[in-house]
Amino acid sequence: MVIPLNETDFLKRALAVYADSEAVVCGDQRLTYGELGQRVNRWAHMMSHLGLQKGDRVALLLQNDHRILDAFFGAPQLGAISMPLNFRLVTSDYEYILNHGEPKVLIVESGLESLIEPIRQKLTSIEHFILVREGSVAQDNEGDWLDYDSLLSEASPDPVPSIEVDENDVSALLYTSGTTGNPKGVMLTHRNLYLNAMNSIIEFGLQNTDTFMQNTAMFHCNGWGLPYAVVGMGAKYVVLKKFDPATVFELMAREQISLTCLAPTMIGMLLNHPQSLPDDLPRAMRVGTAGSAPPQALISALEERFGWQVIQVYGLTETSPFLTVSKLKPAMRDEKAEERYRVLTKSGYPMLGVELKVVDDRGEEVTPDGQQTGEVLARSNVVMAGYWQDPEATDQALDQGWFHTGDIATIDGDGYIELVDRKKDLIISGGENVSSIEVEGTLYKHPAVLEAAVIAVPDDQWGEAPKALVVLKTDAEATENDLVEFCRNNLAHYKCPKSVDFVDALPRTSTGKVQKVRLREKYWSEKSKRVQ
Amino acid sequence: MVIPLNETDFLKRALAVYADSEAVVCGDQRLTYGELGQRVNRWAHMMSHLGLQKGDRVALLLQNDHRILDAFFGAPQLGAISMPLNFRLVTSDYEYILNHGEPKVLIVESGLESLIEPIRQKLTSIEHFILVREGSVAQDNEGDWLDYDSLLSEASPDPVPSIEVDENDVSALLYTSGTTGNPKGVMLTHRNLYLNAMNSIIEFGLQNTDTFMQNTAMFHCNGWGLPYAVVGMGAKYVVLKKFDPATVFELMAREQISLTCLAPTMIGMLLNHPQSLPDDLPRAMRVGTAGSAPPQALISALEERFGWQVIQVYGLTETSPFLTVSKLKPAMRDEKAEERYRVLTKSGYPMLGVELKVVDDRGEEVTPDGQQTGEVLARSNVVMAGYWQDPEATDQALDQGWFHTGDIATIDGDGYIELVDRKKDLIISGGENVSSIEVEGTLYKHPAVLEAAVIAVPDDQWGEAPKALVVLKTDAEATENDLVEFCRNNLAHYKCPKSVDFVDALPRTSTGKVQKVRLREKYWSEKSKRVQ
Repeated sequence: MVIPLNETDFLKRALAVYADSEAVVCGDQRLTYGELGQRVNRWAHMMSHLGLQKGDRVALLLQNDHRILDAFFGAPQLGAISMPLNFRLVTSDYEYILNHGEPKVLIVESGLESLIEPIRQKLTSIEHFILVREGSVAQDNEGDWLDYDSLLSEASPDPVPSIEVDENDVSALLYTSGTTGNPKGVMLTHRNLYLNAMNSIIEFGLQNTDTFMQNTAMFHCNGWGLPYAVVGMGAKYVVLKKFDPATVFELMAREQISLTCLAPTMIGMLLNHPQSLPDDLPRAMRVGTAGSAPPQALISALEERFGWQVIQVYGLTETSPFLTVSKLKPAMRDEKAEERYRVLTKSGYPMLGVELKVVDDRGEEVTPDGQQTGEVLARSNVVMAGYWQDPEATDQALDQGWFHTGDIATIDGDGYIELVDRKKDLIISGGENVSSIEVEGTLYKHPAVLEAAVIAVPDDQWGEAPKALVVLKTDAEATENDLVEFCRNNLAHYKCPKSVDFVDALPRTSTGKVQKVRLREKYWSEKSKRVQ
Repeated sequence: MVIPLNETDFLKRALAVYADSEAVVCGDQRLTYGELGQRVNRWAHMMSHLGLQKGDRVALLLQNDHRILDAFFGAPQLGAISMPLNFRLVTSDYEYILNHGEPKVLIVESGLESLIEPIRQKLTSIEHFILVREGSVAQDNEGDWLDYDSLLSEASPDPVPSIEVDENDVSALLYTSGTTGNPKGVMLTHRNLYLNAMNSIIEFGLQNTDTFMQNTAMFHCNGWGLPYAVVGMGAKYVVLKKFDPATVFELMAREQISLTCLAPTMIGMLLNHPQSLPDDLPRAMRVGTAGSAPPQALISALEERFGWQVIQVYGLTETSPFLTVSKLKPAMRDEKAEERYRVLTKSGYPMLGVELKVVDDRGEEVTPDGQQTGEVLARSNVVMAGYWQDPEATDQALDQGWFHTGDIATIDGDGYIELVDRKKDLIISGGENVSSIEVEGTLYKHPAVLEAAVIAVPDDQWGEAPKALVVLKTDAEATENDLVEFCRNNLAHYKCPKSVDFVDALPRTSTGKVQKVRLREKYWSEKSKRVQ
């Protein structure tokens, strides 16, 4: 018997078994699974009334909000495609993305509609603009936006008639935050999302006793697939609208969180939080982290100070997102803390159903010695169907049955990969490869450094040379010379930054990745433009 | 990217990550994953040389043995179909099954070839007979059997050329032990086995730190899918050839087992084991159980005496096998022990991707009150593709998109089903349904009863009446009258056995299910034959 894999299966099980259990906590809102199921049905009816049909897109521009779950589980019921948008983009990005993905409906959170208003007339595909007002009274300029909550409450809570949906149909269209060029629309299928969620359940050890806290952005790769995983297991899903350390700690204590995902920047913010922690802060929490490899110091501090277990995962929007997980093998458990943390800073080994290889420029697999570097290629059911309306980029990314991640890594004898750099962020100085991540790792060890990014800048002698952009900790001091010397004492000299600029903040993508392309722009003129 | 789901993925991950870790323990044999991978490759080459091609069957007649893993992972590499055979059948059964499933190769364990020799000339499809001699010298009458271990060691340990295998192709052909009529060949696909294994990992919480002990028969539904699950997680797989309480306890202590599966009969044998237990018997073991619902007394004894956690699962060969799992919901954890054990004796709630319903004779869903009974129907990717060469039986079982289990159950408000009886084992006495399981549960509470089976026998007054067949504990005594009176004090009178026969043992299928059809035969003449 072949039943198409569909994310709605996860909600179906929750409804059959956990209808009366608490499902979602978001601000003051608390929903049981029964109530969530009814909301999802209402959403599907509402969208159906508005003319949304199989294959149509519905775009979502909201900060973390339980209403995103309405769409995550409602759209697949109709065979429609959800398009969660990064809420940190600028108006011109939205114009590009919305006219490229051509959604029929756009749902926007009150406060974010100002990003859309200036281009509204140019958004030719959108038939319905819906605003989530969250208790606020309709403003004058909101008059021609439909009201989300009213529409939803007017719709029927009964299931919509079921339609046939192929598991290889697209379920989510996710525009990558775009480190270069125009954003590309990543097409993830039901099968992609389903198998990624199964892997999440397995690798995070999700059970019905868990309470998960969504700190990372829900728009990003459908909340890393955790919404499906959590619902499938009948666990509890706690949504945090906006990350703020004091609120995070308070909510973790109040809801007794057992599992969360944090970008490394978030971990840093929690560790640097000056106030005292709640007495009942859960101490047996598992913390998934991804986006960029967290420095070892962060992992050990989290474990030693809070008692939390860090589980690093690695992947891309194009891979639903999880490819690897870094956990200790049984034999490693007896090793010294230093050694254990060293393993946990790696990106890890493939999840089930994922084949990886690390290949050099000639496409040959590199020696698994933790030294030789190459590009990470993946072959898996979690790899996207392709880029929306972009067969050329799709062919380039999915070359001969392997997805090219654009990430440079080593692989060791235990099968763990370790990211060295984004292919485009690698610094090639005097013919030597310099990993920006390695240099940053050294800078992070300096007591005054809060954040650091190392990029290639033009150099007359070496072609390229490393340059550091550094955010200092509050009240901490360090000169350019201090930091360069610190590096020279800890790194091969050719790897050391030749200059340091101090900045207030680093530009990051929604997933916490530093946008090095933006940092580099300033230093590369038309004349000296980088090839990559 | 769509990659056909295939059980070999689980071994691939183990080889990429756990090549040096201990994989298999079987008697004196200890294998790493790297060694297991080489054996599997050798197996595929050996079979390829013998002419086994995509779609061909290879039958296995072995007690629990690590060599079965060679086939479980080797056959899917060739797109061939493995046919593990119940080793407790009689010669005529083998004749029927082998001429029905028509394997090209038959692999038999030394000692079991006497079951095959008498019919060897009649097995028209088999081109190669292979014997597993396990160190013994070839006997005279074994001369025309190929030698498994020699053939394997001569074959190449390198991977065979990979061929395209559809995930919906059949991977295993399993003849059901046949409570009635001729055995039927259940066709399980790669997709069936893959998704069942994922569910096993999730519901048993399998991690790479686990050591699993295979006590139940490996031939039965490919070891309940646990071999794939355990290998996929890089855990350790300990094979026990023949169940014997003293050996079991010793091996559990020696290998520090953390997870096992036991049929209820096995649990009873462990609990009744008179000798003292090893000091280092693991106390945090999870014990999956299935086959028939274990009496509450067994579950509580296992938890209270050994500290083991029982996880009941339910399914059939036709469902790969897992449909449901019985675990406590978070809110139930604070309930009294009695209440908790009550829940754990139920078959439980659906696993991920499984839809269940309990329907009455008209096909209407029964009220979920834990009282009304109906047949369990299932819709899931773990449901078989059908019965081999038997479209009629397939259509009957897979009626209108639902698999008819033939099991009668209730479903409660929490979504837990509880098996009441096999449809054919239900006793209909004076128009009232009597659950043989309920009456047996009462008999099990009597201190002298070791095993009990209740069946329908002809009754002039009521059409049918319940009759008990009882095995008494060693040195315990009880009369027919004692047991009938005991029931009348604990059950509605119409449910009580009208007679009791004392027997030395109950006939069971390989999965531990009592073969009630065989028990009934004696009491029903041609004249009074049961309709069912």
